[in-house]
Amino acid sequence: MADRPANDAPYRLIDAVDFGEDVVVQAFANLYGCRIGDGSRIGPFVEIQKGAVVGARCKISSHSFVCEGVELGDGVFVGHGVVFTNDRYPRAVTGDGELQGDGDWTLERTVVERGASIGSGAIVLCGLTIGEDAIVGAGAVVTRDVPAGAIVAGSPARALRTRATT
Amino acid sequence: MADRPANDAPYRLIDAVDFGEDVVVQAFANLYGCRIGDGSRIGPFVEIQKGAVVGARCKISSHSFVCEGVELGDGVFVGHGVVFTNDRYPRAVTGDGELQGDGDWTLERTVVERGASIGSGAIVLCGLTIGEDAIVGAGAVVTRDVPAGAIVAGSPARALRTRATT
Amino acid sequence: MADRPANDAPYRLIDAVDFGEDVVVQAFANLYGCRIGDGSRIGPFVEIQKGAVVGARCKISSHSFVCEGVELGDGVFVGHGVVFTNDRYPRAVTGDGELQGDGDWTLERTVVERGASIGSGAIVLCGLTIGEDAIVGAGAVVTRDVPAGAIVAGSPARALRTRATT
Repeated sequence: MADRPANDAPYRLIDAVDFGEDVVVQAFANLYGCRIGDGSRIGPFVEIQKGAVVGARCKISSHSFVCEGVELGDGVFVGHGVVFTNDRYPRAVTGDGELQGDGDWTLERTVVERGASIGSGAIVLCGLTIGEDAIVGAGAVVTRDVPAGAIVAGSPARALRTRATT
Repeated sequence: MADRPANDAPYRLIDAVDFGEDVVVQAFANLYGCRIGDGSRIGPFVEIQKGAVVGARCKISSHSFVCEGVELGDGVFVGHGVVFTNDRYPRAVTGDGELQGDGDWTLERTVVERGASIGSGAIVLCGLTIGEDAIVGAGAVVTRDVPAGAIVAGSPARALRTRATT
Repeated sequence: MADRPANDAPYRLIDAVDFGEDVVVQAFANLYGCRIGDGSRIGPFVEIQKGAVVGARCKISSHSFVCEGVELGDGVFVGHGVVFTNDRYPRAVTGDGELQGDGDWTLERTVVERGASIGSGAIVLCGLTIGEDAIVGAGAVVTRDVPAGAIVAGSPARALRTRATT
């Protein structure tokens, strides 16, 4: 692992990231405390938070947000403007009206398995698994697990069909 | 009020903003002509426009857009990639094909009351009130007022249930 | 055509763009290899890719993504957080698990005709035409062609009515 990507680009912030070989990170990225595997490509205006794991040969497209608790397998495609979540009941403040701290919420993990594709503009709720080679359509709101090879779309996302094995 | 947030961060633009105490603004934020209350936290890639008001102890997460005419009460949570709007019939040009100017459209205000949470990826149409402690689900498209304590989700957003008073 | 916009702004990247007269580009924009017509205005956190064409007097609002293969006519409005797409079956890797290259996918073009408005947060699938003066509602997911003058909304977007000719 290296502490820098393979390319240079202006206006980007990289703090305590473990990079594999040949990772390309575009300008205006904000990456911290995450792990990014060999050959992956990270677009502009992308944030990847601490504790997130991106596999090898993934593509994370512009304007996407990968939060703590998200793990992407190898060869996962994340479209533009995709948002992952990790808190089922997000709040700014506690019941006392004080700012929430680290102990005031429960992180729920999401796993996207190898080869899956998350279409642009999709919103992925938390505590879910998106199976191997599954396809999430652009603009979908994913509220349940997506089986391996399934194709889902809509709000909430529903199965369209199962992808033919290739 | 102060004219600067409590922290430093690179690559951010702050112009004529009234800050309360202990406001934290992350990198890649673009804030101008707005007011932000005590203790609020503004994420990266956030734009807050002139005339917008953010209460105290709010959290505005990454990639969100808070436009002119939006007023957020105290303790409001805004998820990632949330978009507010203020123009019901947005157009680039007038009927004559000239660029629209300030007098060519009507601003419609939106109010989010104290303690409400707007889930990630939600789109909020204009001229609406989202009531106290209401919850808007991730990916919802809010086209009507949301009563205090209601939980809404979907496109268009519909009531799921009313939140138990705590 | 010029190789620079009419204004200055910090933190923006402009590479090999053909600008018309009086184009305004805000901070945090990422533009490359595209063409932008007279008088158009490009917001912050906008990416416009190579080969995209933006007509004259368009407005492209913050956080939007205009990809290769998209052509916007004159006077088109693009709201905040709008995402265009150009690949019906996006994947990170080929069937062999290698990173996709330029020859491994098929670009599908999208045309937005003169005077149309795309509401904030809309996701536009590829290979589509959005007709003259059509209106796409905020948060819509556009999966089919939109006729000239039509008003569509929802996920997937459906016709609400046809706009009165003015």
